[in-house]
Amino acid sequence: MQATSRRCRWASIPGPNMREAASMYGTAVAIFLVILVAALQGSVPPESPFPYHIPLDPEGTLELSWNVSYVQEDVHFQLLVRGLKAGVLFGMSDRGELENADLVVLWTDGGRSYFADAWSDQKGRIHLDNQQDYQLLQAQGTPDGLVLLFKRPFATCDPKDYLIEDGTVHLVYGILEEPFQSLEAINISSLHTGLQRVQLLKPEVPTPAVPADTRTMEIRAPDVLIPSEETTYWCYITELPQGFPRHHIVMYEPIVTEGNEALVHHMEVFQCAATFESFPHFSGPCDSKMKPQRLSYCRHVLAAWALGAKAFYYPEEAGLAFGGPGSSRYLRLEVHYHNPLKIPGRRDSSGIRLYYTATLRRFDAGIMELGLVYTPVMAIPPKETAFVLTGYCTDKCTQLALPSSGVHIFASQLHTHLTGRKVVTVLARDGRETEIVNRDNHYSPHFQEIRMLKKVVSVHQGDVLITSCTYNTEDRKLATVGGFGILEEMCVNYVHYYPQTQLELCKSAVDPGFLQKYFHLVNRFNSEDVCTCPQATVPQQFASVPWNSFSRDVLRALYAFAPISMHCNKSSAVRFQGEWDLQPLPEIVSTLEEPTPHCPTRGAQSPAGPMVVNMAVAE
Amino acid sequence: MQATSRRCRWASIPGPNMREAASMYGTAVAIFLVILVAALQGSVPPESPFPYHIPLDPEGTLELSWNVSYVQEDVHFQLLVRGLKAGVLFGMSDRGELENADLVVLWTDGGRSYFADAWSDQKGRIHLDNQQDYQLLQAQGTPDGLVLLFKRPFATCDPKDYLIEDGTVHLVYGILEEPFQSLEAINISSLHTGLQRVQLLKPEVPTPAVPADTRTMEIRAPDVLIPSEETTYWCYITELPQGFPRHHIVMYEPIVTEGNEALVHHMEVFQCAATFESFPHFSGPCDSKMKPQRLSYCRHVLAAWALGAKAFYYPEEAGLAFGGPGSSRYLRLEVHYHNPLKIPGRRDSSGIRLYYTATLRRFDAGIMELGLVYTPVMAIPPKETAFVLTGYCTDKCTQLALPSSGVHIFASQLHTHLTGRKVVTVLARDGRETEIVNRDNHYSPHFQEIRMLKKVVSVHQGDVLITSCTYNTEDRKLATVGGFGILEEMCVNYVHYYPQTQLELCKSAVDPGFLQKYFHLVNRFNSEDVCTCPQATVPQQFASVPWNSFSRDVLRALYAFAPISMHCNKSSAVRFQGEWDLQPLPEIVSTLEEPTPHCPTRGAQSPAGPMVVNMAVAE
Repeated sequence: MQATSRRCRWASIPGPNMREAASMYGTAVAIFLVILVAALQGSVPPESPFPYHIPLDPEGTLELSWNVSYVQEDVHFQLLVRGLKAGVLFGMSDRGELENADLVVLWTDGGRSYFADAWSDQKGRIHLDNQQDYQLLQAQGTPDGLVLLFKRPFATCDPKDYLIEDGTVHLVYGILEEPFQSLEAINISSLHTGLQRVQLLKPEVPTPAVPADTRTMEIRAPDVLIPSEETTYWCYITELPQGFPRHHIVMYEPIVTEGNEALVHHMEVFQCAATFESFPHFSGPCDSKMKPQRLSYCRHVLAAWALGAKAFYYPEEAGLAFGGPGSSRYLRLEVHYHNPLKIPGRRDSSGIRLYYTATLRRFDAGIMELGLVYTPVMAIPPKETAFVLTGYCTDKCTQLALPSSGVHIFASQLHTHLTGRKVVTVLARDGRETEIVNRDNHYSPHFQEIRMLKKVVSVHQGDVLITSCTYNTEDRKLATVGGFGILEEMCVNYVHYYPQTQLELCKSAVDPGFLQKYFHLVNRFNSEDVCTCPQATVPQQFASVPWNSFSRDVLRALYAFAPISMHCNKSSAVRFQGEWDLQPLPEIVSTLEEPTPHCPTRGAQSPAGPMVVNMAVAE
Repeated sequence: MQATSRRCRWASIPGPNMREAASMYGTAVAIFLVILVAALQGSVPPESPFPYHIPLDPEGTLELSWNVSYVQEDVHFQLLVRGLKAGVLFGMSDRGELENADLVVLWTDGGRSYFADAWSDQKGRIHLDNQQDYQLLQAQGTPDGLVLLFKRPFATCDPKDYLIEDGTVHLVYGILEEPFQSLEAINISSLHTGLQRVQLLKPEVPTPAVPADTRTMEIRAPDVLIPSEETTYWCYITELPQGFPRHHIVMYEPIVTEGNEALVHHMEVFQCAATFESFPHFSGPCDSKMKPQRLSYCRHVLAAWALGAKAFYYPEEAGLAFGGPGSSRYLRLEVHYHNPLKIPGRRDSSGIRLYYTATLRRFDAGIMELGLVYTPVMAIPPKETAFVLTGYCTDKCTQLALPSSGVHIFASQLHTHLTGRKVVTVLARDGRETEIVNRDNHYSPHFQEIRMLKKVVSVHQGDVLITSCTYNTEDRKLATVGGFGILEEMCVNYVHYYPQTQLELCKSAVDPGFLQKYFHLVNRFNSEDVCTCPQATVPQQFASVPWNSFSRDVLRALYAFAPISMHCNKSSAVRFQGEWDLQPLPEIVSTLEEPTPHCPTRGAQSPAGPMVVNMAVAE
């Protein structure tokens, strides 16, 4: 604490409340802040505490807690700054960059201190916002550090502000170590900055009751020595007791070893394939040369958690079956350690706690794969900033494979490889888009959570599910084709639903014959560059396309027009009976309109410029 | 006046100011309004009077005056309502529709009266705006009627509000004859409504001085009996005096016969071709069977005016030459009468007053045609809502044809036929768009003014001028091809510039050979629908294209990729020397960014909802 106060560069302007503060916290109080501005009246902090917490930086200097009000359409933030130096900046941006970011800045010019809503331009220069939409509610010194309490509406209608939407939000932060004469003088490149991904708008789903006979099982890798590498995927194989009968998982939650909150990035529990009698025990990096080959047969997701997520609850009428005959006893835990500072010697026993019941619920939950087939016929030209590929689950497939009462999707996990930037699945009925199943406009392949839907989506026979992924291939020199490889692409939405059906896969790809027509056509406009000979593979053909505006635009036109080949499958290899090739693209006559953001009416509460914050240091 | 007050349904709530009002206007005063709300302080009406005026409805019931402040970025409106009944609505919308309009509404529920910022949805239902951006400054009864004074910023950042931009603005109005219980209860379809097009953001160009020896000449059709038809184009042939020497026109202004302000829609003065010695006199409808054939040889624009425009001034260093050897003495005046109520018996002698000087200015002004060649190779598929065609004036042509000191564009007249919806010309230098020459995002083929540019645009050798037109062909069944016919399309920007050069035409069209590749390509994807045989004309080929998403998208891709044929011409038939076929499309590496609208900070002045307006009737 003393170290903190010694490093503090806030000017000491003793205020009338100093004595009071000192008596409240005694000598242990390091920093005390008095907000002089009177505009805070009427801005009561939310009654409930902050249910969501996340460390922002790997050292745990900044800790964010927050609360969402869907009625007020705002987010209350509580930012704990440990060892405050000369200020802090915090905000949001499209993909976690410090440029074009929407920021709040707390800074000092050496004398006075200020809090303001600001934004950074494309060169990272900071400017005061015309509209002050982040509203400071409280700034208080605590034994842990400075606590800033502020709120912001989801939408401000200020074109310089980030729109807080469902899905991933890239939080950014910066630590000011020196005073700056003005907001504009802050040089972002000189600061210690970083990003953290989080689902800010957590769904307000009421927590289902957990049955009385619920038992728990902890799937934890015991006493792992976290490698001092930036990225480690740790694999740990464990097993269910012999003769463990069929149960329903009804809930699960993360167990994160204390002190490692900033290092444990995400965790997943997979069930191994029943085709093998046994799996060797293992605990080590997933890419280790020592790892058993069979690890790759442990891919059926039982539970998934990522930083910032809380417990995952199944709906009251459904549970995820595990145990019992016909399923493997072996489980694989995968823990992604994110250790950018390469801190050595840290030990960890994090994992997932499963809550399960022997009293089977009415419905088995299932997981269905929507989107694109893993095939090279779906490709993204190089140097594209936002190329969209779309996969369909057609009316013909849902008509055949879904029960007449339909199924209910309650959660979703979006998946692409490295170039994925946005993912959305839309439900269409009778040619009209009616509902968004899940959407992430700031999707990151590095942050793939299973997310509860705000609202369960019911899919009926004859409905169409359209999954679109947006890719950025600016750094690629050749086309990126679909496939399993990490440098190939996928467009998948794993939807969690009930009651379970036989339909495991409902995906599409362009008809390969029409793709050959495309290669021919490109040749007519250029001098025979693409080999359309029979021995050339599709990836080879794509690699030889001369990428100009015409070949790009026409590929886009082809994907928007050509018939598709459907995978309407019971498992990845077994199709439902029927004709699935050369299917027409679903015809969509009306698309969902973007909802107009509700702009808050700003009243006298919002200051026109920075707020002066008087900070006095008490020893 | 008495009739007005008898019909008035405003509730009579005698206010303290009633006696005062009565004494001010005597018994002639019909309506007097007192604004009770105190929020008006600090909102002083602009100092200068309102320089711009326009009647909104053909009966002249509503008259709008306005003033623009580029410093405040707002428009002050003064709306005069003659014979007020139960209220009025006024606003703006994309193309003059009453749906999706941004409105101010003055209405009464029979008791109280209200003024509010509102918007109409796509079904024409009216809703209160979340943000009240129209600010009422004054409401006052005058002998002429009720005068409402209010202002609005160009941009409000309220997604329900219209963005006031350069170019055409479609004003809409409605007259409330009955009280409505609420804003939401107002049924637009039951009102007397209409639209008026106007350039709201008049440029603030300082008025150049007019030389002392300036003389005037009135080109007026004498004593025309306006036909009781909705639309009449009146043609009148007149002539300059024998031996009239070369002069410079330095300014011109409209002369509109008093009382006909709402009927005279636009007027143009053309000079006839010098190829004919004389032209017969004529005064009658331009489409009359009696009209001389030679009228169609009078097409060289000397002056053009449209409703809402003021005087047109040439820059001090330039004038438009007329008279003298080598030019025709004959002039054609064209007056467009818009008489939707088919009022009979109205007589009119409107026209244009030319201000000219014998002291020739330093530079002759010239008119250059930018955009697309009139050729069917440029076509718009049917059922498109916003199809864009682009014409280029290439670096090669400007390099060759412009003087080394460049030319200066000071005015512009945009031109398309019936399906044109937007027009823009952008200047690019070294592959970078640098400046907008002229843009109209709400262009209407029914409102083609010569507009002074806010800022003179200098074009240098090697610059590129890119003119794009956006078309709506929703009501067409076949492709719309380029050409002269009214059902064919054009994309032209007539730019007025100095010093005059030989370059009269700098336009482009797609290479016809690449278009044939397109027809072949479409055939590969469909079963040989398009005749690619040599005897088929391009319009026939376009007429046989099966329009699906692929043929549409690929046509778009073709126009964005294929080489062009340039018309870099001295006159419409004489090209500059050089190779002008199969030219590459200009490469543009950076486009102009849309400026972020500057959202005003709303303070305590803006009410959160409707303002109560107390109206007392004095006899």
